[in-house]
Amino acid sequence: MDAIDLILAKRDGGRLTDEQIDWFIQSYTGGAIGDEQAAALLMAILFRGLDAAELARWTQQMIASGTRADLSALPRPTVDKHSTGGVGDKISLVLVPLVAACGAAVPQTAGRGLGHTGGTIDKMETIPGWRSGLSPDDVVRILGDVGAVIGAAGPDLAPADGKLYALRDITGTVESIPLIASSIMSKKIAEGTGALVLDVKVGTGAFMKDLARAGELSEVMVGLGAAHGVHTTALLTQMDVPLGRTAGNALEVTEAVEVLAGGGPSDVVELTLALAREMLELVGLEVDPADALADGRAMDTWRAMVRAQGGDPTAALPTATEVEVIPAPASGTLARLDALAVGVAAWRLGAGRARKEDGVSAAAGIVWRATVGDAVTAGQPLLELHLDDPSRLPSALAALDDAIEITSDPVPPPQLILDRVQ
Amino acid sequence: MDAIDLILAKRDGGRLTDEQIDWFIQSYTGGAIGDEQAAALLMAILFRGLDAAELARWTQQMIASGTRADLSALPRPTVDKHSTGGVGDKISLVLVPLVAACGAAVPQTAGRGLGHTGGTIDKMETIPGWRSGLSPDDVVRILGDVGAVIGAAGPDLAPADGKLYALRDITGTVESIPLIASSIMSKKIAEGTGALVLDVKVGTGAFMKDLARAGELSEVMVGLGAAHGVHTTALLTQMDVPLGRTAGNALEVTEAVEVLAGGGPSDVVELTLALAREMLELVGLEVDPADALADGRAMDTWRAMVRAQGGDPTAALPTATEVEVIPAPASGTLARLDALAVGVAAWRLGAGRARKEDGVSAAAGIVWRATVGDAVTAGQPLLELHLDDPSRLPSALAALDDAIEITSDPVPPPQLILDRVQ
Repeated sequence: MDAIDLILAKRDGGRLTDEQIDWFIQSYTGGAIGDEQAAALLMAILFRGLDAAELARWTQQMIASGTRADLSALPRPTVDKHSTGGVGDKISLVLVPLVAACGAAVPQTAGRGLGHTGGTIDKMETIPGWRSGLSPDDVVRILGDVGAVIGAAGPDLAPADGKLYALRDITGTVESIPLIASSIMSKKIAEGTGALVLDVKVGTGAFMKDLARAGELSEVMVGLGAAHGVHTTALLTQMDVPLGRTAGNALEVTEAVEVLAGGGPSDVVELTLALAREMLELVGLEVDPADALADGRAMDTWRAMVRAQGGDPTAALPTATEVEVIPAPASGTLARLDALAVGVAAWRLGAGRARKEDGVSAAAGIVWRATVGDAVTAGQPLLELHLDDPSRLPSALAALDDAIEITSDPVPPPQLILDRVQ
Repeated sequence: MDAIDLILAKRDGGRLTDEQIDWFIQSYTGGAIGDEQAAALLMAILFRGLDAAELARWTQQMIASGTRADLSALPRPTVDKHSTGGVGDKISLVLVPLVAACGAAVPQTAGRGLGHTGGTIDKMETIPGWRSGLSPDDVVRILGDVGAVIGAAGPDLAPADGKLYALRDITGTVESIPLIASSIMSKKIAEGTGALVLDVKVGTGAFMKDLARAGELSEVMVGLGAAHGVHTTALLTQMDVPLGRTAGNALEVTEAVEVLAGGGPSDVVELTLALAREMLELVGLEVDPADALADGRAMDTWRAMVRAQGGDPTAALPTATEVEVIPAPASGTLARLDALAVGVAAWRLGAGRARKEDGVSAAAGIVWRATVGDAVTAGQPLLELHLDDPSRLPSALAALDDAIEITSDPVPPPQLILDRVQ
């Protein structure tokens, strides 16, 4: 077989055969096909797409580049959630223990942040002692004991994706629906979950800017899950406004713990409960997750989960050495708080990384004292910028230049859940 | 500047700026941009194209990666011809000395064959002593003395093309009209010719299979020539049937010498004269090239040109150790003699190469005793397969399986010149 035949077939609008797909993923992962031929094929796929059968095979081969975990011996049904990434999205921190408290096992494999979107692992790592690196045996043991785990991807979890993603990142081939779908779903299927709920973010702060494309991606991923025996549904949720009141690693852990304690911002509570209900329905558990949040069972599971991964849930989290407060420039209703601007500003303050190798600040980030639809008074503290490194302030402030709009008209709070795909 | 910005701009249907094009060609040629990013950009260009201004700049940068020769001190006007490649296309061997004999200087830079199409340098190298490697000073001297030269591209002739072409070859990005046009025209403009006639082949044995696409390529190349001050026209000529009666290196030299001697196949004579008239008209020389062919001046110039490059025009050429004769399977009129099949068979006999590094056989090739439109009698020798290596015969015969069709109806000879673009 020759890579050029695959490139020409896809370039000219044809299909790749099963044998071609198997050979490409295996040979590229093994180093027998060079980056230049893989880049040409990926760009041809970006223009021409992959049909459902090609994509199912492509994803299967990505999974087969490592090992698909077998969690069938667990006494509880398994279900997970994946978010395509947003600003202030700390939902997993509440949702994973909450759903476990309701009787399911949640084997979440999470990632680190890149660019303006945060990563669950970065947030959890602000908890003293907590570690993300678990062996497959650790995962099974913690799922049996606690029902909830948040681990980093191990070297055996769809390793083809790591190599393909690094290439896509530098060759302008990230924004392809089949390539996005196979990247996400290969890892989720390989982690061994039996069911999956996708939180597909739509808006300025999300990877998908428009609802139609987000819907298309959702349908492709739901189909891929079904093709691999993982019952999958998707909620399309808004990301023009950041979630909750904080963006930044330790800041978001603190907010998540407030929600687990029965408080916290209403949008975080609402979205967490909606996703929990989806997950529980998928595995046939007829429980109301609001009860588990209200009676402290979710908090108990959170603490057990943190402890099981070496963390101290009672320890104080890092705080910033400086807090710059930005007052509201006028009185009225907050009409806009741009998710992308907030995400970029938090990133520039140190909460995010530009390259995979970079570290992140635990304490840096942004707190907003009001969100879209709230009344504000001129001069009241509106934004808090938390940082350790004063040299980062000017570029963060620049990112926020056009982030806010205050109006004298009434503004409804943003609609959180835009659509559902099953 | 960052290569990803160029890839994304082109991928999404935008234009590349002059600065981006300059930076890309310089950085890729210099090694600062990797093959994987260049491959992604080339594939995006294949899908999205380059507009006339982008293409002119792209080509200018390819020329500027080396040196554009200055032939303005020559006493004669300069004009050259380029063929996009066909089977049995030995036209240059006759045309270059013929046009020089009519008063122009022809500074031809030629290439080696690849795949089923032959290369002028491979053919000329079958002449004992002849060498293609000339310094720029050699070229100017021979053009002054003889008026005709056929040289291989030196390291200073659009070196960016060598690197880009090698990448296109393995990444499925050869078949892009702007990339083909810039590759051809950068080398022709850099060689220093003042005017240029393109012989754009169309048909089964040509790179371009259909007339509309060949016309589009011709228009783009004619425009590029004009943008760089090289007056350019194009003839679109048929390549469903191979040219003349031979395909193979020494076999084609012998046929070319027959034409120079006033004989040879009528299609070779006709196309050579048509191209010569185009070339002479471009430089304002009102001479009938048929006279120079008839009175031996073209042959004199051929001999002088061969001698000037170290060759002995009177030496015997290599001949094959084996000749396999295929008889006509029926009586009637030859209705089809497929150029691609003949080209592939000659290649498999040893006349061509699969990879740039391979050598070629001087003597191997095919002679056809009749062409389309000719009457044949069952059992008469129709094809001669010339070869040195008997193991090559079966695969060459296989290529010819469906190459021939004999009919009882009258068949007109193929129309040689299909269109003209100026």
